[in-house]
Amino acid sequence: MLIQPGELLAKIDNPSDLRKLPLDKLYQVCEELRQYIIDNVSIYGGHFGASLGVTELSVAMHYVYNTPYDRIVWDVGHQAYNHKILTGRRDQFHTNRQYGGLSGFPKRDESEYDTFGVGHSSTSISAALGMAIASKEKGDDRQHIAVIGDGSMTAGMAFEAMNHAGASDANILIILNDNRMAIDPNQGALKDYLTDITTSPFYNKIKDEVWNMLGKVKKIGPHAQQAVSAAENALKSALLEQSNLFEALGLRYFGPVDGHDINHLVHVMEDLKKIPGPKILHAVTVKGKGYALAEKDQTKWHAPGKFDKLTGEIKKKVFTTPQAPKYQTVFGETILEMARENEKIMGITPAMPSGCSLNIMMKEMPDRAIDVGIAEQHAVTFAAGLAAEGMIPFCNIYSSFMQRAYDQVVHDVCIQNLPVIFCLDRAGFAGADGATHHGAYDIPFMRCIPNLVVAAPMNEAELRHMMLTAVNHRTSPFSIRYPRGQGVMPEWKVPMEEMQVGKGRKIKDGEEVAVLTFGHIGNYVVQLSDRFQAEGVNPAHYDMRFVKPIDEEMLQEVFTKFDKVVTIEDGAIMGGFGSAILEWMMDNGFTNKQIVRLGIPDTIIEQGEQIELQKEAGFDHDGILEAVLKLSSNVKSKSKVLVKSK
Amino acid sequence: MLIQPGELLAKIDNPSDLRKLPLDKLYQVCEELRQYIIDNVSIYGGHFGASLGVTELSVAMHYVYNTPYDRIVWDVGHQAYNHKILTGRRDQFHTNRQYGGLSGFPKRDESEYDTFGVGHSSTSISAALGMAIASKEKGDDRQHIAVIGDGSMTAGMAFEAMNHAGASDANILIILNDNRMAIDPNQGALKDYLTDITTSPFYNKIKDEVWNMLGKVKKIGPHAQQAVSAAENALKSALLEQSNLFEALGLRYFGPVDGHDINHLVHVMEDLKKIPGPKILHAVTVKGKGYALAEKDQTKWHAPGKFDKLTGEIKKKVFTTPQAPKYQTVFGETILEMARENEKIMGITPAMPSGCSLNIMMKEMPDRAIDVGIAEQHAVTFAAGLAAEGMIPFCNIYSSFMQRAYDQVVHDVCIQNLPVIFCLDRAGFAGADGATHHGAYDIPFMRCIPNLVVAAPMNEAELRHMMLTAVNHRTSPFSIRYPRGQGVMPEWKVPMEEMQVGKGRKIKDGEEVAVLTFGHIGNYVVQLSDRFQAEGVNPAHYDMRFVKPIDEEMLQEVFTKFDKVVTIEDGAIMGGFGSAILEWMMDNGFTNKQIVRLGIPDTIIEQGEQIELQKEAGFDHDGILEAVLKLSSNVKSKSKVLVKSK
Repeated sequence: MLIQPGELLAKIDNPSDLRKLPLDKLYQVCEELRQYIIDNVSIYGGHFGASLGVTELSVAMHYVYNTPYDRIVWDVGHQAYNHKILTGRRDQFHTNRQYGGLSGFPKRDESEYDTFGVGHSSTSISAALGMAIASKEKGDDRQHIAVIGDGSMTAGMAFEAMNHAGASDANILIILNDNRMAIDPNQGALKDYLTDITTSPFYNKIKDEVWNMLGKVKKIGPHAQQAVSAAENALKSALLEQSNLFEALGLRYFGPVDGHDINHLVHVMEDLKKIPGPKILHAVTVKGKGYALAEKDQTKWHAPGKFDKLTGEIKKKVFTTPQAPKYQTVFGETILEMARENEKIMGITPAMPSGCSLNIMMKEMPDRAIDVGIAEQHAVTFAAGLAAEGMIPFCNIYSSFMQRAYDQVVHDVCIQNLPVIFCLDRAGFAGADGATHHGAYDIPFMRCIPNLVVAAPMNEAELRHMMLTAVNHRTSPFSIRYPRGQGVMPEWKVPMEEMQVGKGRKIKDGEEVAVLTFGHIGNYVVQLSDRFQAEGVNPAHYDMRFVKPIDEEMLQEVFTKFDKVVTIEDGAIMGGFGSAILEWMMDNGFTNKQIVRLGIPDTIIEQGEQIELQKEAGFDHDGILEAVLKLSSNVKSKSKVLVKSK
Repeated sequence: MLIQPGELLAKIDNPSDLRKLPLDKLYQVCEELRQYIIDNVSIYGGHFGASLGVTELSVAMHYVYNTPYDRIVWDVGHQAYNHKILTGRRDQFHTNRQYGGLSGFPKRDESEYDTFGVGHSSTSISAALGMAIASKEKGDDRQHIAVIGDGSMTAGMAFEAMNHAGASDANILIILNDNRMAIDPNQGALKDYLTDITTSPFYNKIKDEVWNMLGKVKKIGPHAQQAVSAAENALKSALLEQSNLFEALGLRYFGPVDGHDINHLVHVMEDLKKIPGPKILHAVTVKGKGYALAEKDQTKWHAPGKFDKLTGEIKKKVFTTPQAPKYQTVFGETILEMARENEKIMGITPAMPSGCSLNIMMKEMPDRAIDVGIAEQHAVTFAAGLAAEGMIPFCNIYSSFMQRAYDQVVHDVCIQNLPVIFCLDRAGFAGADGATHHGAYDIPFMRCIPNLVVAAPMNEAELRHMMLTAVNHRTSPFSIRYPRGQGVMPEWKVPMEEMQVGKGRKIKDGEEVAVLTFGHIGNYVVQLSDRFQAEGVNPAHYDMRFVKPIDEEMLQEVFTKFDKVVTIEDGAIMGGFGSAILEWMMDNGFTNKQIVRLGIPDTIIEQGEQIELQKEAGFDHDGILEAVLKLSSNVKSKSKVLVKSK
């Protein structure tokens, strides 16, 4: 079912169509855009609140600025739905976030209007500044705009970029989309500060002065530029001593403005276009604007899944049998369970309390479960500080966001051998969020660091056992990776048992071929049991549990008994788990072995259902079966296909 | 020659000895400390200016605070020499930065006074905040102090930590050691801002008011706490509207104070001890204080090497033959040479212009060679923004600092396949800076990222050729790693030649064993030529140049001709170059091969000369020879030793 756009929106195939409309039609365009997003997301799913919050900003920008010549960079990018619909992708919008469809984020390959791919937060100012300085070097007169939320502002990278921008003469406008939210409510001092400045009479006064000044500027026509400078000097002494955070960083501050007043936004932007140099426009918006339920519960409606747009009922699959929990739930319940018994246990998350389920512990123990905001680097070193004083911190960070804190893992935790426990959520394919969010690289980038234990549970019980094991393992840092989504154990709340660090388990004996798995993906091998039998093969299966330290005794057994081995991991095979097996094999004098490594190949894989992506990567059920058959001499099926590590 | 400490210093074996002295003796302690540092560094080398700048701060902290119960975290840590000397390591101080000696940075293993290991910048606030929150949880009444330079403040991580600290009620004092310098002069808007607030009459007025308030507070004794809050409220409206950057982040701001006035510092700290919650003391200091030449040229005297303390003459080795240049010089000269011809070439460094030699280009082309300050994350995404607009950015970051920008390499550069050129300086063992600075992990963490070319030159000419090749390679990002220090070609300025990406070169044919090398370490194999001959072995040698894409044709030749292979890399062997060779071998059906991988083993290796560390890791000349002999059947020497991958 294709959604029908409204009357005006139906005629906007790109921003130049938008720019042909008179100003007084923009209100209707905004209404139609919002409706189109509500209609689409309610049926097809996707991010929701963020884009509804920037409808007017999106329309105003494309109306005022000469896109794509002028460059807009959307921070995080799940706020870019209006932008996508306005820039030639209206009719494909229903494929958003699906396999082979539009990306849920801006993507350079997808449109010339998508100037920079974004998915992780806080990159937009750096990117736009790079573009602005490139324009300066090339002598282009482009405008460059970064649209960034107040949540993204808490990440250090945004500060680094502002510190550079403010000292430059680059032609860059930062639009601070201030809605007080990331996915969860924002954290930290900056949030309070933004409230202060939006309510302070002082800033409103300055704002008025600036706008009056700009009013005058417009009247004097071609000499606007010099006039601004003159007026600026007149204001300078006042501004210097009473500057706000952004002025302190050398950015001219304008605002706060109502981010939903389309007429005012257009006027403001038209004025700002004429002011060269680095500047910031502070727009106050409401996440979920225009859909009352989403305005009210912004975390729930960040990405609600499919829903009934009239009743607001979020559609959940109905199951007749008990379902396995999400790994996230297991983490969230288990840490709380342990924390009740052990007062040294603390939980840290950088802005993902609902995503990783630390919110369960936060409710009961707000002092011991801490959301530090979008600040992965700080989260890790903060955890190291806690560990240095004898606390037992669980630092839960999505695998792909852990890339942001890599130095802190190496420098602050592992070199010092501090017993911080990392939980790498969303390890492996993340699904609909696509390439920027896949937890693809953590096995190689974590296992090369000395002192670190690198583990992955195959199921919910193993996750619980590993968490307990990590708590009791006080001699080194410990990392546990697990995927987004459901496990396999409806009855998951088994008593926790301590494991031996560096010990795997044999799941079944077998013949000719041994399959070694790391983490949840091992369940696929178990599930293939009948198909193996039907093909007349009987591979052994080992759940290695730890890639570091690796179970040498078990590998000794494997390589003594088997000449053919398949390794499977939901991660990059270049340097990953399979490579660890190769290294051990060679270092221990086993030659004449055949090893096929399955995992994420050395290429960028886009969005889709996890199983679709695993198929593409060659380690879904079929791919695993194929690999085993390929190595087996005694196969009933004749449809053997060449399989090699991808 | 052991340096004699001054009369007072000789009796200070730990801070409690210091605390027995009357206040009026501290001036002399500072003088003696400074002299001791000058004497030692002039003879043994080491960092210089930073520690001279914080002598009074160090003495005041250990005098006022109850260390080690109270926690001091030294940001970067090369400013901690006074601290080390005062905390029981005076007599070992001459071993500073030497193999087996004291670390040049604080180190938890070394002393209970070293609460947190530091080497990279901007970690101290996060760590101290973690400690402070742990104390709160444990009910301890400790003080927690982070001493951080204004250079380190520009890194986003410090901002993330302040944003968290300011919203907390943790008992943490941040001492901003404001000397306007990192190794090179500081960059960015913050620098100007700090100048503004230190010279603004407004802030000096507020400061006076606060101190007056504190004066009153002290008189009212046990109710100080409430009184502070009352006074605070009285000041609040003034502060709120006119708050500075730090107050905006929720930190109570005190200062600026003269960081060299020991008496005043002691009084200030005594007052600050009584004020709970997060606060910042802004101390203005002079880097190199007390040694006139160092005050004057602070970059040169950051770590001058050995020198004549009377004349200030820096001792340089005198050579009678032409010497090979440093790789750094080759980079610096070559980028300028190319930039003169190609106006799209730009250079980016995060605060290491003199270390990486981009300063050569900065002098001639200040607009096109940019120091963004300590801001690795921003540096990479900024470069991505430049590349998105068609510029050709060289982003030069030390290998160990690239860990700070890993997500940006993945998310902003490689996923988008933007042709940014990374130069990873200090790849491999960094030498005297030790574990925090070794460029150990970049081969595994870079080669697992799709789209990225990963290369390493064996000598100066190859570095030049690779830089040219990277400039012409517009289809993907490109990474070039090279070590700290000298190459092997006194006549290095050869004409640049474009290479074929992904092609190695055979250096020599041979028998029985093939040695595959990646980067500069290949020269060791060449240098072993006579010793190989003396032992009766004749290994082939291939300089692979690229670990990705790997030279498949060459590997086909190697594995067709040879059953025994030694791989050598100056990097972590877990997942590194050697593993790439193993992967290729297995994926291409070669079994029955013996491969010994030499490289940095899976353990933390401390400081020392590069060659000492390579010896420890087993890939100095002897280690390489041993590995080859071990694999060779026809060896004259009888002293064969078991060698396996470490």
